[in-house]
Amino acid sequence: MAELATRSGAAFDRAPFDALLKRRLFFTPSFEIYRKASGGFAGDIKGLFDYGPPGCALQANIVDTWIQHFILEENMLEVDCTVLTPEEVFKTSGHVDKFSDWMCKDATKGDYLRADHLIENVLEARLKGDKAARGLEVEEEKDTGGDPAAAKKKKGAVKDVKAERLDDAAVKEFEEILARIDNYDGPELGSLIKKFDIRNPDGNNEVLPPVPFNLMFKTSIGPSSGSIGYLRPETAQGQFVNFKKLLEFNQNSMPFASASIGKCYRNEISPRTGILRVREFLLAEVEHFVDPEGGKKHERFEDVDKIELVLLDRHTQLAGSTETKVMTVSEAVRSHVIDNETLGYFLARIHLFFRKIGVDPKKVRFRQHMANEMAHYAADCWDGELLTSYGWIECVGCADRSGYDLSVHFKRTGEALVVREPREQPLRIEEWQVDIDKKKLGPKFRKNAKAVEEAIEATSQEQRETFGQLLEKDGAINIDVPGLPEGKAELDKALIQIVRRTRVENTREYTPNVIEPSFGIGRIFYSLLEHVYWHRPGDVARGVLSIPPLVAPSKVLIVPLSRSPGFASHVKKLSARLRTLEISHTAEDSSASIGKRYSRNDELGTPFGITVDFESLKDDTITLRERDSMKQIRAALDDVLGAVVSLVNGTELWTDVLKRLPEFLGQSEDE
Amino acid sequence: MAELATRSGAAFDRAPFDALLKRRLFFTPSFEIYRKASGGFAGDIKGLFDYGPPGCALQANIVDTWIQHFILEENMLEVDCTVLTPEEVFKTSGHVDKFSDWMCKDATKGDYLRADHLIENVLEARLKGDKAARGLEVEEEKDTGGDPAAAKKKKGAVKDVKAERLDDAAVKEFEEILARIDNYDGPELGSLIKKFDIRNPDGNNEVLPPVPFNLMFKTSIGPSSGSIGYLRPETAQGQFVNFKKLLEFNQNSMPFASASIGKCYRNEISPRTGILRVREFLLAEVEHFVDPEGGKKHERFEDVDKIELVLLDRHTQLAGSTETKVMTVSEAVRSHVIDNETLGYFLARIHLFFRKIGVDPKKVRFRQHMANEMAHYAADCWDGELLTSYGWIECVGCADRSGYDLSVHFKRTGEALVVREPREQPLRIEEWQVDIDKKKLGPKFRKNAKAVEEAIEATSQEQRETFGQLLEKDGAINIDVPGLPEGKAELDKALIQIVRRTRVENTREYTPNVIEPSFGIGRIFYSLLEHVYWHRPGDVARGVLSIPPLVAPSKVLIVPLSRSPGFASHVKKLSARLRTLEISHTAEDSSASIGKRYSRNDELGTPFGITVDFESLKDDTITLRERDSMKQIRAALDDVLGAVVSLVNGTELWTDVLKRLPEFLGQSEDE
Repeated sequence: MAELATRSGAAFDRAPFDALLKRRLFFTPSFEIYRKASGGFAGDIKGLFDYGPPGCALQANIVDTWIQHFILEENMLEVDCTVLTPEEVFKTSGHVDKFSDWMCKDATKGDYLRADHLIENVLEARLKGDKAARGLEVEEEKDTGGDPAAAKKKKGAVKDVKAERLDDAAVKEFEEILARIDNYDGPELGSLIKKFDIRNPDGNNEVLPPVPFNLMFKTSIGPSSGSIGYLRPETAQGQFVNFKKLLEFNQNSMPFASASIGKCYRNEISPRTGILRVREFLLAEVEHFVDPEGGKKHERFEDVDKIELVLLDRHTQLAGSTETKVMTVSEAVRSHVIDNETLGYFLARIHLFFRKIGVDPKKVRFRQHMANEMAHYAADCWDGELLTSYGWIECVGCADRSGYDLSVHFKRTGEALVVREPREQPLRIEEWQVDIDKKKLGPKFRKNAKAVEEAIEATSQEQRETFGQLLEKDGAINIDVPGLPEGKAELDKALIQIVRRTRVENTREYTPNVIEPSFGIGRIFYSLLEHVYWHRPGDVARGVLSIPPLVAPSKVLIVPLSRSPGFASHVKKLSARLRTLEISHTAEDSSASIGKRYSRNDELGTPFGITVDFESLKDDTITLRERDSMKQIRAALDDVLGAVVSLVNGTELWTDVLKRLPEFLGQSEDE
Repeated sequence: MAELATRSGAAFDRAPFDALLKRRLFFTPSFEIYRKASGGFAGDIKGLFDYGPPGCALQANIVDTWIQHFILEENMLEVDCTVLTPEEVFKTSGHVDKFSDWMCKDATKGDYLRADHLIENVLEARLKGDKAARGLEVEEEKDTGGDPAAAKKKKGAVKDVKAERLDDAAVKEFEEILARIDNYDGPELGSLIKKFDIRNPDGNNEVLPPVPFNLMFKTSIGPSSGSIGYLRPETAQGQFVNFKKLLEFNQNSMPFASASIGKCYRNEISPRTGILRVREFLLAEVEHFVDPEGGKKHERFEDVDKIELVLLDRHTQLAGSTETKVMTVSEAVRSHVIDNETLGYFLARIHLFFRKIGVDPKKVRFRQHMANEMAHYAADCWDGELLTSYGWIECVGCADRSGYDLSVHFKRTGEALVVREPREQPLRIEEWQVDIDKKKLGPKFRKNAKAVEEAIEATSQEQRETFGQLLEKDGAINIDVPGLPEGKAELDKALIQIVRRTRVENTREYTPNVIEPSFGIGRIFYSLLEHVYWHRPGDVARGVLSIPPLVAPSKVLIVPLSRSPGFASHVKKLSARLRTLEISHTAEDSSASIGKRYSRNDELGTPFGITVDFESLKDDTITLRERDSMKQIRAALDDVLGAVVSLVNGTELWTDVLKRLPEFLGQSEDE
């Protein structure tokens, strides 16, 4: 990406960034010693990653911020449901039938490829080849990921890119296809593969037409092996099946939201882009239940309505473009770009969450799903996307799932997943009602009586009006009953009567609609790391992760200048003070130079450093260093600790502290 | 259990306790609406539970306390590894072959039963029948759990208990078998079943002999279905395979510990005891890596050595008794009841953790594993057990796994999972060395040359000394080489020489041993709830959960006396103040009486209540109520908030606050 610059203005370079994350053990491919081992793994175990100590801490702090920003701020009801899920639940939700990606097999090599990614990769490679042929600058190749095996493969593929000129119409067509790549179904992807003779880049074999591959991991629960279970691909269904209990817990008051944070699993066909496409990942999801009537208003909408969002709507994409518009939330809702207030409210809250954790605001956009991309029941859906060196990455999905999920579970289980509330004014409904004389119906239709009764009950108001007139006129009517041998039943006045009456409803019953913001924590984690990474001017080897204090893995590094006992006891005392203040910290009393120790912690994203020097032992003053500016202040211990607390809590900025405490210029980091 | 009393002195009664947990949604069987649905589930989906809002919060607070007490206090390296694990890793660790329970099939009914639980249930029922026949009090039945289906079954089984006299020898024999039930292997369990004619209590059918059933959930990773994967049954292996990276991250300094908190999975044969035996559960595990030489000392041992533990050692159990001894940690290590200092250190730390979260100290014991119960490689193992109405429950395992795991992964992958450290004093070793003239060995033995060379290298120091003398004497020796046709090779002086030399070792290389404290968070969670439950004297309907403020789901309930706008703004202000102080709280402005609202929160374990009344609006004073004593104080807002902070942080007790702030006697809870 030409526009991908780090905060120092220098271009983002993935190689030193990847090396830094690996060196500092933010994350690592799982079971790596087995991948390297002779014999290795029998099959395909890509898409699995472990988090090391700084990765764990950063992830935990992102999750804590999420809990604070969503669950606590809005009194959401947190639930923790099982990953193991019986098959019937996912049959009902539609996942057993429909939760799949389109997959092509390279029959010669035995490779499996995800169809849309195959097309993307090949068309992008051709566009690159065209640029090369025209003598334009070629982008860095995509998809080299954290996974070394994948990286190698991809490089091989890139070598295959021929500098070959395309005609202008083809360039335009390819770009338009790429803009709406998420909107194609399987047969359409198959046609594209055929039309453009798209082959497996690794070996150039033709591929078979796309077939659906279900992404859920399957297992068997219990010893009898009769119970099929799946690992959940999202936390949502656990929240839906508990809806009634949650509503009761909320003392039957609407609207309310539940929330869940937990591991989810998708058996990706061919995960390549490192930690961005994994088979096991952490999701944080909100299910906000709202009355579908009254325009899905949100009572706190005005807290956010002036926030400006960068939007890429579905019409723009279908027209083959990816141009974004900046709009306030209220403008977007009013002009129906965003379907309703509650959806708009959550898009704004997502935007604020991104800001809070340190995402680069210039690398955020909200992209609307196109029609084919959404589930058939969804009213609207937006992805919060973050720009990385792999392109725009879907990090948050925010969908209006309508009342679909609650309805299907209700239908399957008979448990009324609805809200019942007393009407302020009783509702009086004038309607046609059917009175059936069941004593006569039974003997007449015998075993078919129930089917006949159901057919009668199922008639609409319009049909009932017509039937009433016919009954009046002819004394009998014929009604369609699919189960019967003749396909219909004759009913006379003695059996049924159709009359107009007034029904009074004191209770209103409705299925709530669901607005679902769903956060891929691992993708946010990775994108954030790209956004905060830069290196000291002119020195690629000195990387810095400018993670905001709020989510930084550790807040303070204590650096004693000497390893003598006097220093050790001073460090211990300081550490105890910081623990009481609940400031996470580490002490580094290695023999490395101060500069080396600070550099290591710049890479770990530690925002502050405290040096304990010979002066400190005498007068109890210490110096405080800020990571990004490398500036230091020197003051009494208590004053410095007070500053650290307000810097970490966000009540003060470093620039404020620099104004009120004396800058220290004595110590050079290169010593 | 006769001894199971609540803190008010009244006996623990499980029925109102279960009802309370259900009513307040601490947890619930997963997918309950499907269990009730007509048709229900095709198979067996017991052992899965969801946590509701108070359960989530309590669990999160227990985990936070664990992180503080173990990870942060001791600078452990946290890692977050995947649940999905390729088969080869668990082949190496031994889980594919050995991680199983013994299972009996009732061929008539098709039921599967866990063999040891079957024997336990039947023998306990017979002992009960004997007691009944002797006219003694019969204990409450075990195993009625949170699972309603299981409870029904069990009650049926209990009905079958006949009041039947056993002779005294049989009573003694049964009690001895129960004391060492964990020590029997499959064939032994089979013999007991035969000897005592033990049958399926549900239907009284005979059962087939026990067979092993592997407890790991199996799945397939990737689309090619060639890669078998398992859901991890423990987090440990993920930590071991990352050992080398963690050691590097720790700047190659020993000892150190890693730690992991995450879901684990065991496909239990027939889970019955509610949330205590589940198929998906949260484990928090520490792997403390220690030098096996020098007695596995721990540098902080003296911080804990005077702590008294309640111990049930293996000799006592093998003698058929369950009598405990109270010993200090230092005494237990010195007398070799506990194998080593590091193990003793962690048992004491576990004990302190239990105290911190509010476990009843009278309901804790540490039980040592018997020989057959431990893995063959383990040096020693103790379970931290908590007493509940289901008996003593294993909540923490603390094992010395020796160097087993690191060794087997090293052997399989070739990745050296060892510590290499420079010796302070180079080690000078006098030894017999063999010099082989490979130029002659090759032509003489051809394709067998390598086997001959390996046989020579494998000789011990003693053999070499003897061979040296023989070589001197006879000019040639015969050495056993299994691969050769004759089974031995003749070697003369021209081929080998054996000489005594001094070797200098500057680096020491060793495989660390692992001490592993492993915490079943769900079991601790449940046992704690039983320990803190009681009811107001004389009123079973008024249950209280005396959860300590540190881990209570919510710390403060705000109760406005009226729903008028003046109160609402006061509550909002108060809520903002508490949020700034990071005190979790809820406000309840329902129309229910104050007493009802407080009762609800006693059941939720909320330790403090703030009442906003008409006085509050005038003079900014508020009342603070303490849950256990129901006493109240009244003071200015700031003073009360200050007290809340110190109460929640544990720097002050309620009795301290009562001394310094005026008690309030105005408001009765029954109003």
